Amino acid sequence: MSNLELKILKMFKKILIANRGEIALRVIRTCKEMGIKTVAVYSKADEESLHVRFADEAVCIGPAASSESYLKIPNIIAAAEITNADAIHPGYGFLSENSKFSRICAEHEIKFIGASGDQIDKMGDKATAKQTMKEAGVPCVPGSEGLLKDVADAKKIAKKMGYPVMIKATAGGGGKGMRAVFSEDKMEELFDSAVNEATAAFGNGAMYMEKLIEEPRHIEIQIVGDQYGKACHLSERDCSIQRRHQKLTEETPSPFMTDKLREAMGEAAVKAAEYIKYEGAGTIEFLVDKHRKFYFMEMNTRIQVEHPITEQVIDYDLIREQILVAAGVPISGKNYLPKLHSIECRINAEDPYNNFRPSPGRITTLHIPGGHGVRMDTHVYSGYSIPPNYDSMIAKLITTAQTREEAINKMKRALDEFVIEGVKTTIPFHRQLMDHPDYLAGNYTTAFMNNWKMNPPKED
Amino acid sequence: MSNLELKILKMFKKILIANRGEIALRVIRTCKEMGIKTVAVYSKADEESLHVRFADEAVCIGPAASSESYLKIPNIIAAAEITNADAIHPGYGFLSENSKFSRICAEHEIKFIGASGDQIDKMGDKATAKQTMKEAGVPCVPGSEGLLKDVADAKKIAKKMGYPVMIKATAGGGGKGMRAVFSEDKMEELFDSAVNEATAAFGNGAMYMEKLIEEPRHIEIQIVGDQYGKACHLSERDCSIQRRHQKLTEETPSPFMTDKLREAMGEAAVKAAEYIKYEGAGTIEFLVDKHRKFYFMEMNTRIQVEHPITEQVIDYDLIREQILVAAGVPISGKNYLPKLHSIECRINAEDPYNNFRPSPGRITTLHIPGGHGVRMDTHVYSGYSIPPNYDSMIAKLITTAQTREEAINKMKRALDEFVIEGVKTTIPFHRQLMDHPDYLAGNYTTAFMNNWKMNPPKED
Repeated sequence: MSNLELKILKMFKKILIANRGEIALRVIRTCKEMGIKTVAVYSKADEESLHVRFADEAVCIGPAASSESYLKIPNIIAAAEITNADAIHPGYGFLSENSKFSRICAEHEIKFIGASGDQIDKMGDKATAKQTMKEAGVPCVPGSEGLLKDVADAKKIAKKMGYPVMIKATAGGGGKGMRAVFSEDKMEELFDSAVNEATAAFGNGAMYMEKLIEEPRHIEIQIVGDQYGKACHLSERDCSIQRRHQKLTEETPSPFMTDKLREAMGEAAVKAAEYIKYEGAGTIEFLVDKHRKFYFMEMNTRIQVEHPITEQVIDYDLIREQILVAAGVPISGKNYLPKLHSIECRINAEDPYNNFRPSPGRITTLHIPGGHGVRMDTHVYSGYSIPPNYDSMIAKLITTAQTREEAINKMKRALDEFVIEGVKTTIPFHRQLMDHPDYLAGNYTTAFMNNWKMNPPKED
Repeated sequence: MSNLELKILKMFKKILIANRGEIALRVIRTCKEMGIKTVAVYSKADEESLHVRFADEAVCIGPAASSESYLKIPNIIAAAEITNADAIHPGYGFLSENSKFSRICAEHEIKFIGASGDQIDKMGDKATAKQTMKEAGVPCVPGSEGLLKDVADAKKIAKKMGYPVMIKATAGGGGKGMRAVFSEDKMEELFDSAVNEATAAFGNGAMYMEKLIEEPRHIEIQIVGDQYGKACHLSERDCSIQRRHQKLTEETPSPFMTDKLREAMGEAAVKAAEYIKYEGAGTIEFLVDKHRKFYFMEMNTRIQVEHPITEQVIDYDLIREQILVAAGVPISGKNYLPKLHSIECRINAEDPYNNFRPSPGRITTLHIPGGHGVRMDTHVYSGYSIPPNYDSMIAKLITTAQTREEAINKMKRALDEFVIEGVKTTIPFHRQLMDHPDYLAGNYTTAFMNNWKMNPPKED
């Protein structure tokens, strides 16, 4: 819809962005394009940040510590009231999935651009979310629904859910009291040894069971729901390349995807969203096993870091959609399929040669790649000092092309052009990843990074 | 096709780029993505240029003056032979439409990535090109085919081609001895006064006639032809916003375009290309009058500055296509229609507040806009010194969105983010253009800039 139509509609006049870094800038950009005024909030550590410079107004909400600034609900609400903002965009992280914050916004008649408090609660903790999804008929990782009585009980349940299974100590941790069982004839032996191990380690031998997901891939479905109970999906993102549950690079389409699987996963995601009458942009994360069976893992009730790759392949501005939906615009209900291939590399101020240790500090030189098929989302500039207080991500480099191979080749040349001096970054990690035979073959699971070793830096 | 398929095909191993600035970098980027080695050539003035840094090899070909470097055919051929380049990409300008250079490359068995000498000659000078296009059945601006005998002859010819017409002194210039005639009853009076004026001014009263193009728009069609006589079109670009025949900003689709007109112009352009068995990327420039009649103006037998907007709306890398076609890959023959809207602003180191006077010098601060729908093609960086010897264009800012309005809003916010200090640039011109009511309405012709006046700079 045109900006004129937006004005006629009761569109927000001013949006406060309760976040920092690239996502704050990302939201400000779309607001500007929609003719909506913006308010930045910032901590003392972020005075020199671009989101402060590019917003129409900026309010300091506290010292560097997040708990005293970006997480401080009263300060943010006060900033919104002082500046007469009629909506708050929470970005990702910080208060974006805080049901209390969503409710307080509603109480103050400030539109929270995201899910309602109840929706966040329903999907917030894993157990409740799994229960909700089961009710909605979305496939979840099958489990024993409580403790296993004995080996016979374990065999009965395992037979029902199908091998392989994991037996896990309820008191367990660090892999102790945990066994993968691939067939019934091994159950007795493995069950007993797990019980013994758990009893020895935790004084508690109680066991439960879950389906073992073989060669799991993290594949998520982007959805958008409107205020009228309708949802659509915008296809998948493959986020299997993770280190300690932190995503490093994402792509869409997933190299593991088939049309049939996308249709089934998309349908499940829409069903999940419509079941809870979900409002806004959200992501249903699934694990997909080697047989292309998929299982609900969790839902993110917010925009995600990796949303740009979806935008690139469907020509759709997701932040704009969030704002439209929050303003009461109905969605068409049509689903979106990827027309191109897009990859995102998260550039973190971390030293990949030194166990990804954070490397805050001043950027002395910055040269940003550009040209055909290259998108750059960043809040940093030459001379910018990365504060040590927050997430180490400083830029998202996104390439898009007709095919996966072309998108990878584009990423290689863009990474080669990318110069950041003064701090260590993960650019060399991504550059090596783009040459990894398994990555090139699209042959990777969430275990990929377990065996990662950096090659030594190239001599120049 | 994949890079592996490209290797099996007799693909170029090394391409020399006989150009500088952003287009040299543009070509290097695509070569890298295709796995082809690159050779940069540079003048003494361009030692610090990015195209030199990003190429695999670089050869200095002479001093700053173009005539002694970028136009010096023997130096460029020598550079190609020394480095064993098997193809030369000429970019735009310089030697890109030089039939002699194309022929010399062929003689040295170096593939010229562009048209053959004969094709360039056929489309090179305006009179020959017009004759060729007439033969091909492409509509040209109708004219008197020689001098007018007298008023009666003028009336006869005008009646045949339809009013309005222009009568022009064959010896004329600077508007002298030139009259627009809108109806037959005015012909006698205007013809006589033109003859008198021309006789007085040039001592020669001979007159010829051309159809008067009312409210002309410069709309061009991008075409690609292969080595087997087949061509396709990639729709139009509207380049009507020009100052002294220099394009300032371009967009696709043209706001004046209709599906019917695009089909007719596309068909004419493909006919033109196939008639001369055109090889490579080329552009057929047309004038379109207010009745949506179109007339062949000229053909550019090379890639154009404004090619990115076409790439953005059809997801197609035109440099890649040039290289593929030059290597003998056949095209599918399918035409491409715009799926999005894209705008390019040429950022020149010129002072728009001072009659666009060139402003070479050192860039002290550079901040480049980014994010959703923003593409930047530039060879400059913070600390770069713009030499005074060449074209003043330093960057191309391209925005792409679902609709024209969104692309304009994106351009506004991108221009607002764009910081270049140390030299004057045309950023303020483009920013004002994006607020001009006639531009916003898509209501502009090639006369638009005749009435342009900059508003004073905003106080900050």
